[in-house]
Amino acid sequence: MAKVAVLGHGVVGSGVVELFHKNKHSIESKAGQPMEVKYILDIRDFPNLPYSDRFTKDFQVILNDPEISVVAEVMGGLSPAFDYVKSLLEHGKSVVTSNKELVAAKGAQLLHIAREHNVNFFFEASVGGGIPIIRPMHQCLAANEISEIAGILNGTTNFILTKMIHDQMGFDEALKMAQQLGYAERNPAADIEGHDTCRKICILASLAFGSHVYPNTVHTEGITKLTLEDVAYAEDWGGVIKLIGRARRLPDGTLSAGVFPAFIAEHSQLANIDDVFNGVLIRGDATGDVVFYGRGAGKFPTASAVVADMIDVAKANTTSKSLCWEDSDGNQVVDIETVPFSFYLRLTSPRDESFPAAVKALIPEAGELHRKNQPADEWAFVTPAMPEQELKKLLDELLRPGDKLLTRIRILDY
Amino acid sequence: MAKVAVLGHGVVGSGVVELFHKNKHSIESKAGQPMEVKYILDIRDFPNLPYSDRFTKDFQVILNDPEISVVAEVMGGLSPAFDYVKSLLEHGKSVVTSNKELVAAKGAQLLHIAREHNVNFFFEASVGGGIPIIRPMHQCLAANEISEIAGILNGTTNFILTKMIHDQMGFDEALKMAQQLGYAERNPAADIEGHDTCRKICILASLAFGSHVYPNTVHTEGITKLTLEDVAYAEDWGGVIKLIGRARRLPDGTLSAGVFPAFIAEHSQLANIDDVFNGVLIRGDATGDVVFYGRGAGKFPTASAVVADMIDVAKANTTSKSLCWEDSDGNQVVDIETVPFSFYLRLTSPRDESFPAAVKALIPEAGELHRKNQPADEWAFVTPAMPEQELKKLLDELLRPGDKLLTRIRILDY
Repeated sequence: MAKVAVLGHGVVGSGVVELFHKNKHSIESKAGQPMEVKYILDIRDFPNLPYSDRFTKDFQVILNDPEISVVAEVMGGLSPAFDYVKSLLEHGKSVVTSNKELVAAKGAQLLHIAREHNVNFFFEASVGGGIPIIRPMHQCLAANEISEIAGILNGTTNFILTKMIHDQMGFDEALKMAQQLGYAERNPAADIEGHDTCRKICILASLAFGSHVYPNTVHTEGITKLTLEDVAYAEDWGGVIKLIGRARRLPDGTLSAGVFPAFIAEHSQLANIDDVFNGVLIRGDATGDVVFYGRGAGKFPTASAVVADMIDVAKANTTSKSLCWEDSDGNQVVDIETVPFSFYLRLTSPRDESFPAAVKALIPEAGELHRKNQPADEWAFVTPAMPEQELKKLLDELLRPGDKLLTRIRILDY
Repeated sequence: MAKVAVLGHGVVGSGVVELFHKNKHSIESKAGQPMEVKYILDIRDFPNLPYSDRFTKDFQVILNDPEISVVAEVMGGLSPAFDYVKSLLEHGKSVVTSNKELVAAKGAQLLHIAREHNVNFFFEASVGGGIPIIRPMHQCLAANEISEIAGILNGTTNFILTKMIHDQMGFDEALKMAQQLGYAERNPAADIEGHDTCRKICILASLAFGSHVYPNTVHTEGITKLTLEDVAYAEDWGGVIKLIGRARRLPDGTLSAGVFPAFIAEHSQLANIDDVFNGVLIRGDATGDVVFYGRGAGKFPTASAVVADMIDVAKANTTSKSLCWEDSDGNQVVDIETVPFSFYLRLTSPRDESFPAAVKALIPEAGELHRKNQPADEWAFVTPAMPEQELKKLLDELLRPGDKLLTRIRILDY
């Protein structure tokens, strides 16, 4: 019998408890033993649930109950989650979490503590909600050297972009719709500014490349400046705009990591991931490209990943020594401006036909894009691959008074 | 130190040995110990390889070497693979295999023997090549009740269909091209008649639903009768034709399982899986739809799945009790003709405009499809969902001398 506790009875936490009741038979058969939720920690009261007697407001009760071997932390945020998880691991209890902020900020430290105390710290639910991604990447791709990860990791922004692409809805209107449908929070900054995607790509990159990638070392751009004009030029180019979290091992062993909107060709598997769905592409030297797709958030998808981790802990009689990475000083991540990308540029200039000529004098391989109702003073180009610092110099040379760079978006080739 | 043996030095077997050399550091770090290929079994000589000294022609040497704890069976076929694997498990050695024929025919028996002898029998590489699918389905989706699996599981047929859809190439020409590129064998029957897909959906269904699904209980249609006319009507309907392996739990606990070409809507994740790629959709009650995508075959993709299984065996100090299913008498799979589907029908009739009227008199909800250059005596319809036995009765009633049913394809809604 494994007795477990759930920290937090919000959306995911209530989903975890409900799944334990709904799929009890299947869960216990997979775990090879009975499993029971003994405690649910929440500061609120839930008097009318069938399991109301399991609630406690006192974390110490859980920490000091020797019967509890596994705890699910589904509160979110760093405080008090970090202190709770750290104490639990130090008390010899395994922890599973859906908290991407916690894993992205403290993963190396918590994995180290777990190892020291011979317990497990699992976090499948922290990336991609119900899509199995952490464990397949770690385990099934164990025979591969992973060279690159690129993912659509945030459902809110992907929903907004899908509305912009398929329904010609403006950013503000699409955001409002996402809020009305409950996909975006009242304060949507963490999603639309790319921070949520950043945490997730940090977790995947840490696991794939073996040393902790901290969010503050990763260049992060959101989608707030994208317009329907950019969507139209992307279509002319032959693709769509997606918010991508990406990490790639460079030949010298350093990492290029970033979160940014990108042009993705329409035939790519990533281009067809729409609405609130997530998808992650993993490039391995033996497998080639593998893509995982599904619902990246939501009560039951996320809860199912949490419960699967709890089953795995219940089954394990040892500590996973390989689901682990080293701490780092962040120096392994290079300045993104030094990494070559092909860029889409949208500019305005009153210079008429002499403007494209000026662009092509500086960047001979630049290709022009067009859209319906394109104003006479608007121009769009695709550049060959070059580091952004070089592009910036070329733009300094190009732009005269009255000229302006309106948008610059990276182009990825998947 | 784990000493391993590889049975068979064909495409996959040589890939396994090469991966052990190429990614030695990463493999051993994941396995937590050194790993070494001690024997390679093959009846042929390979005198000029860096590891020529590892070859043996004598299976007994491997069977009786107490140092060997893990064996990869990558010979394919049932004989002698079945006898070898059975003996190895009985001698207390764990086995991993890429052999879908073996697992589809003998999985329940071999899993049972493995369990009895406290060893593991893993088969990630038997479905989807390098795509992690068996283990994520088993492990990460443990908290889900799986209701349905649908996959594009054969790269050869998917390549042929992709050529028919995107390049208007006829079936024969596309098959010839697949053979020239090495995607199809000289005798392509196992692929194009659907048998390969059938073995793979049997393995997935056995794992998902807990009792062995035998290939001879699963209705299997190939793609040899498909024409460019059908492709054109599918486009008018709003989708593409894919060869799908599918298994679904029915409300009474029985299974509907089948392999058949199907209309798939163009917005579906399965519609965009092209060329030799595979994709599998798993529908869980908590996760919703999850899709796994990647190269379903090939030397290194498949070898990487074999090696990952070997790493897992090396790490495991216990037998996996839940990667297992019961044997069955096959009665859990219902006659596919009793399961309702929506159908596409292409017919010829000299009856002119009275023919569609006759169809609609029998099937009022039937929708008509059209194509370019449609002959005056050709008709195409989409029916509402009905069991095929009912459809057959309606067609018996409809068809008069001179009328003929040319094609009938199921329509799936993913």
